[in-house]
Amino acid sequence: MEVSVGVSNRHVHLSCEDYKILFKDMKLEVRNMLKQPEQFASTLTVDIEANGKVIKGLRVLGPNRDYTQVEISRTDSYKLGIEPPVRKSGDLLGAAKIKIIGPYAEIEREACIIANRHIHVNEEIRKEKGLLGVNKVKVKIRGEKPGLIENVYLKDSEKAYFEIHLDTDDANAFLLKNNDKVEIIL
Amino acid sequence: MEVSVGVSNRHVHLSCEDYKILFKDMKLEVRNMLKQPEQFASTLTVDIEANGKVIKGLRVLGPNRDYTQVEISRTDSYKLGIEPPVRKSGDLLGAAKIKIIGPYAEIEREACIIANRHIHVNEEIRKEKGLLGVNKVKVKIRGEKPGLIENVYLKDSEKAYFEIHLDTDDANAFLLKNNDKVEIIL
Repeated sequence: MEVSVGVSNRHVHLSCEDYKILFKDMKLEVRNMLKQPEQFASTLTVDIEANGKVIKGLRVLGPNRDYTQVEISRTDSYKLGIEPPVRKSGDLLGAAKIKIIGPYAEIEREACIIANRHIHVNEEIRKEKGLLGVNKVKVKIRGEKPGLIENVYLKDSEKAYFEIHLDTDDANAFLLKNNDKVEIIL
Repeated sequence: MEVSVGVSNRHVHLSCEDYKILFKDMKLEVRNMLKQPEQFASTLTVDIEANGKVIKGLRVLGPNRDYTQVEISRTDSYKLGIEPPVRKSGDLLGAAKIKIIGPYAEIEREACIIANRHIHVNEEIRKEKGLLGVNKVKVKIRGEKPGLIENVYLKDSEKAYFEIHLDTDDANAFLLKNNDKVEIIL
């Protein structure tokens, strides 16, 4: 069974409270819609800092959430000298401390993770694809640097677009780009 | 069968001729020896440039070789806006054009590749490990982001230390560090 690839570059989700601290009354406007329904890349960015090292221009995704979360790659984490854990979105247990720098303020939060490999599904997609009751899968990748990635978790939301999200380390290791097809192995 | 991991960050090998253009009579001195016998990281670095984008501080490895070669990751290649092919060391067919900037000169060469996944062996290691006649293997990786990488080529040299060389994309995708152990699957 094939699924198309979405490559997630480093980005942030903000709680409404943190958004107001960083951006005051600036509007969270859509730059472009993402494939996941109602999710979008906004016109805004923040910088992040740890141990005096800065990575600039992380896209703020919308809409705002109940929690603030910074998603980076292992490669990014070496630049910052931190060790964020691999976590599913919203699970910030043991997340690394990071400074988030906006136009009006800087905030420090234990909010930095490496997102786990995941595939977006909902009940309808699970039924259609034979994925009812499945927690995680393996995914086979073809091409010049082929292989198999494991611990790819299914992530449920009410509205979903069937897509595997990989961070830039996973995507670049396997020479994958947005909309490439990979194969799910149950 | 286990093999230990060596992570290759971006680096350059220089021909004697190109070395002289870039560094004139500066000496190629050892900063630290590498695990491959007689190979070393020198005290020298160069910058590389393509499409007006620069990556600074690539380590010059020694001793100098018969050819000039720049090895980068897919992640690096996006920064530079180039598409280097995946190649074994020394095979520069279709290598991407890159400017190499030293203290005395800049040179432009079709010399930039993404190194293939490879394991260093020699005749003695092949005999000891049961790898006689084997061209490529798969390698299994455990941990929190596990999986299997394929197209891992055996690379023969007279003197060799038994080690898998992975670029930073492969290593970071699987959370691997220097001296971690991974498993060869024939």
